[in-house]
Amino acid sequence: VAEAIGITTPKGFRAAGVHCGVKPEAGRLDLALVVSDVPAAAAGTFTTNKVCGAPVKLSRQRIEAGGRVRAMVVNSGCANTCTGPEGLEDARKMGRLVAAGLGVTEDEVLVGSTGRIGRRLPMEKIEAGIVAAVKALGRGPAADDAAARAILTTDLVSKVAGETVVIGDQTGTLAGICKGSGMIEPNMATMIAILTTDLAVEQETLRYALSNAVERSFNMTTVDGHMSTSDTVVLLANGVAGGTPLTRRDTEYSVFAGALDRVCTTLAKKIARDGEGATKLIEVEVSGAAKARDAKRVAKAIANSPLIKAATYGGDANWGRVVGAAGTATAAVDEYKLRCWFGGILVFDSGRPVPADAEALKKALAGPEVAIHVDLGLGTARAVCWGCDLTEEYVRINLH
Amino acid sequence: VAEAIGITTPKGFRAAGVHCGVKPEAGRLDLALVVSDVPAAAAGTFTTNKVCGAPVKLSRQRIEAGGRVRAMVVNSGCANTCTGPEGLEDARKMGRLVAAGLGVTEDEVLVGSTGRIGRRLPMEKIEAGIVAAVKALGRGPAADDAAARAILTTDLVSKVAGETVVIGDQTGTLAGICKGSGMIEPNMATMIAILTTDLAVEQETLRYALSNAVERSFNMTTVDGHMSTSDTVVLLANGVAGGTPLTRRDTEYSVFAGALDRVCTTLAKKIARDGEGATKLIEVEVSGAAKARDAKRVAKAIANSPLIKAATYGGDANWGRVVGAAGTATAAVDEYKLRCWFGGILVFDSGRPVPADAEALKKALAGPEVAIHVDLGLGTARAVCWGCDLTEEYVRINLH
Repeated sequence: VAEAIGITTPKGFRAAGVHCGVKPEAGRLDLALVVSDVPAAAAGTFTTNKVCGAPVKLSRQRIEAGGRVRAMVVNSGCANTCTGPEGLEDARKMGRLVAAGLGVTEDEVLVGSTGRIGRRLPMEKIEAGIVAAVKALGRGPAADDAAARAILTTDLVSKVAGETVVIGDQTGTLAGICKGSGMIEPNMATMIAILTTDLAVEQETLRYALSNAVERSFNMTTVDGHMSTSDTVVLLANGVAGGTPLTRRDTEYSVFAGALDRVCTTLAKKIARDGEGATKLIEVEVSGAAKARDAKRVAKAIANSPLIKAATYGGDANWGRVVGAAGTATAAVDEYKLRCWFGGILVFDSGRPVPADAEALKKALAGPEVAIHVDLGLGTARAVCWGCDLTEEYVRINLH
Repeated sequence: VAEAIGITTPKGFRAAGVHCGVKPEAGRLDLALVVSDVPAAAAGTFTTNKVCGAPVKLSRQRIEAGGRVRAMVVNSGCANTCTGPEGLEDARKMGRLVAAGLGVTEDEVLVGSTGRIGRRLPMEKIEAGIVAAVKALGRGPAADDAAARAILTTDLVSKVAGETVVIGDQTGTLAGICKGSGMIEPNMATMIAILTTDLAVEQETLRYALSNAVERSFNMTTVDGHMSTSDTVVLLANGVAGGTPLTRRDTEYSVFAGALDRVCTTLAKKIARDGEGATKLIEVEVSGAAKARDAKRVAKAIANSPLIKAATYGGDANWGRVVGAAGTATAAVDEYKLRCWFGGILVFDSGRPVPADAEALKKALAGPEVAIHVDLGLGTARAVCWGCDLTEEYVRINLH
């Protein structure tokens, strides 16, 4: 995954990020706009939280309707969630303003909002912001960087990933930006990701590929086990790179799906690494499960355990908590068949601890990435999930 | 619930708590013994974690076998969990030593251990401790206090509850001690509770009553969502108060069941209040649910949310996180029908925030007990659950 790729590296996309005042701090970017010059096939996955933001309701409906998409607008600082029918009208208005500015139809615009829940959007500021963003639309590193920064909330760093993808005689690019740092859990977190590609991909295939990639990446990422009300991943494919639209039946499908998996996984890991207050990325691999679902559940139970997260922060290879957490998952687990490694060092085997080199273990826990591996010894299914450590800073960030 | 009642207030019970050195600190009590002078009917509930301690395996088997019980021995400081077949042999030996000391049979002794996972018990110390505990057995406040303290691990306070119960012409007492502070979650936590009563209760009725009471009390308590490997609740009824054994068909059954509910709830709340690093008890009430299961799940989702726990610590009536957490539960939730109160102050109604007196809200969050109430507006089912706030101290306690 090349870091130099930005959201407008795929041809036919423009982007902008502006400050309009939803975030009070002067100059902090808070409105992003990504535009495709031609109608793009679109796929999206959204939070499964039964309480969800107005923009989620609106964008989900537009994605489900199956039409082509020309633009996505996202503000940060206010989630437009728990704002009643008025909030839904605000989201619609955001879309209408973008449509008017670009000369496209309302249905071709997707909307996202992230930030504080329960407050109405300051629509005058949003309106001015959309006007400014339409004017500022551009291509290249400056536009890419502004868009990537404008969607952030408590994130410390902006998150970008991309790849060049060659499919037959088409050479295209796949790029993505995302935000997310707290309220991060399975089934989408307070995370918003926008992915663009200039490859031509048939709509149904795009949805299938995105759904699979999200399941293995963003949905396997957890910061605090708290599913958000605003989670959104949108993928736009405008086909400007040329060629016949790719379908699932094509042999090259796996090339595209592989690139999408890698880009989503890179973004997802960046979210976990930038988890609120986090100092370490934790990668949990569970192998030897009887079923794929079991592997996922055990991996999540481990990555979500506040005790394991705190011990990782403390540099303690606390396999007791790992084995204990594995046992709580609704999954087939047999402590007498289970093995556990920290950073490749075996610490537990078949119901008993294994004496391990304390210095080597200390080193395995000291770096910015900690690998926990559990083999259940019951089958061949496997899952990987990403989380982060729990620090005093997480508590301080979330006092309000 | 009278606080003056201790574990030996019910007639025919003796207790002791001694220091034998499982905990390194000189003089810190680490072995408790509770003995019934006559064989007692016994009921028990145990962790549902698929990884569980050797004492859980042993005591569960003995309870299920249905025989009468004469004693329960519990050490703190070492959980005898993940210790392989040798650990199971250690647990058996603990029981044998108690049986020999008391002159009862091995099957009449229950065993519990709580503390660090993955280390063998120091059996020489345990053996000396059991000999000392048998010698120290007594009745009254000193014995009660020693037993209550000897089962503690990271707890800051010992936890006792009891009631006088009048059933027809029987006047008896029901008393309980428990420990638990971290790794506290549904389906039993690193908590051990021993309950004694001198009332005569038929064995099957005792099990039914305990199972119901635990479901509404200990299983509705959460500190950190982490289910332990050692959780055990044992209730011994020795019938020394006289009378015919109570059965579920008797009209007085509800008197006993009510007392048991109250004693278990009092103990459970003491666990939540003493949660690791906690400064506040959080009581979450969910009403208006379509099903009892929905009410429980929503209550747990709220009480387990680290974001809500951190906001409570910060004194922030963050209803957005509460409503958001409710939506994540696998339960029927409709944000347009949901209402939410903090300390009786309505803050959210039918999809929108309600302007509330900021000073009054601040006060509702400032005390040692915070009440969060959610009405789902979908039915009549209700559940209450207890948790605590999340503080920097929780992280510090769990670094190792």
